[in-house]
Amino acid sequence: MTETLSSDLPDGLQERILRVLERACDEGILLATAESCTGGLLASLLTDVDGCSHAFDRGFVVYTDEAKRQMLGVPADMLERHSAVSKPVAIAMAEGAIASSSAEIAVSITGFAGPGGEGAEEGLVHFGCARRGRETVHREERFGALGRGGVRLRCIETGVTLYEEMMT
Amino acid sequence: MTETLSSDLPDGLQERILRVLERACDEGILLATAESCTGGLLASLLTDVDGCSHAFDRGFVVYTDEAKRQMLGVPADMLERHSAVSKPVAIAMAEGAIASSSAEIAVSITGFAGPGGEGAEEGLVHFGCARRGRETVHREERFGALGRGGVRLRCIETGVTLYEEMMT
Repeated sequence: MTETLSSDLPDGLQERILRVLERACDEGILLATAESCTGGLLASLLTDVDGCSHAFDRGFVVYTDEAKRQMLGVPADMLERHSAVSKPVAIAMAEGAIASSSAEIAVSITGFAGPGGEGAEEGLVHFGCARRGRETVHREERFGALGRGGVRLRCIETGVTLYEEMMT
Repeated sequence: MTETLSSDLPDGLQERILRVLERACDEGILLATAESCTGGLLASLLTDVDGCSHAFDRGFVVYTDEAKRQMLGVPADMLERHSAVSKPVAIAMAEGAIASSSAEIAVSITGFAGPGGEGAEEGLVHFGCARRGRETVHREERFGALGRGGVRLRCIETGVTLYEEMMT
């Protein structure tokens, strides 16, 4: 089970993460992450489970726009036109993570964890989930002004949901 | 301040992370991470601080050997000869993170978070810290059988110490 972060996790989330990893192990597939506002938190949870963490391939923590371009191939003009917190960028991040890894499924997270201001709506987050041979899924969430920690934890829940849905 | 993970952090660690980020902001430099056994936990803490997280450039969560090779340029024969948990690999990871980013300073973490067995000594961790124009630092720690969560948190403390030392 997850150990490092357990006391902060919402009820049931640890079990869901464990089931996602067990299922990935059973199917012999690898998972990847492409994270901006969560900064590696999803990856750290997917690697915090004894025995199952070898279902995790790699994580891209792409905090800056330059990192999104260089690590995941997100086009510069897309970032300029739509901003980093947008549907096209979330999709490009997830697909870039698949293209740049051995993973079968990748989840991307890009949003405003908070605080808000200057065009940043606290709690607005775009997610992508890409699986080889399938259409990439997009999701937009407005978690509201839950504070940085609150928004990030809600992001993790949605990220885990996307893995679950893409594995069915 | 860090919010998401705060209740799990050892006393004083949040403040140290905040000071590292403030100092990076003041100096106009960017930080990067290259993490194996901590799986993105260090990156998630460095991006969990309001107002200062823009001092973070990117993080490489290189859980598999293939990820270490492809994302950070760690030579395949080095991984084969020394194994992923070794001084040369820790150094190559930190230097690879600098070479593959805009960061001025990168910390790498590669070790056995636990449980032990089959040649894996629980709590054995190698760290690297690279800064442009300086000699890369290596550190080896034997944290012992603290459990996966305990080892990972000790890794974060050492990682933060390495940033502090490289910034003086």
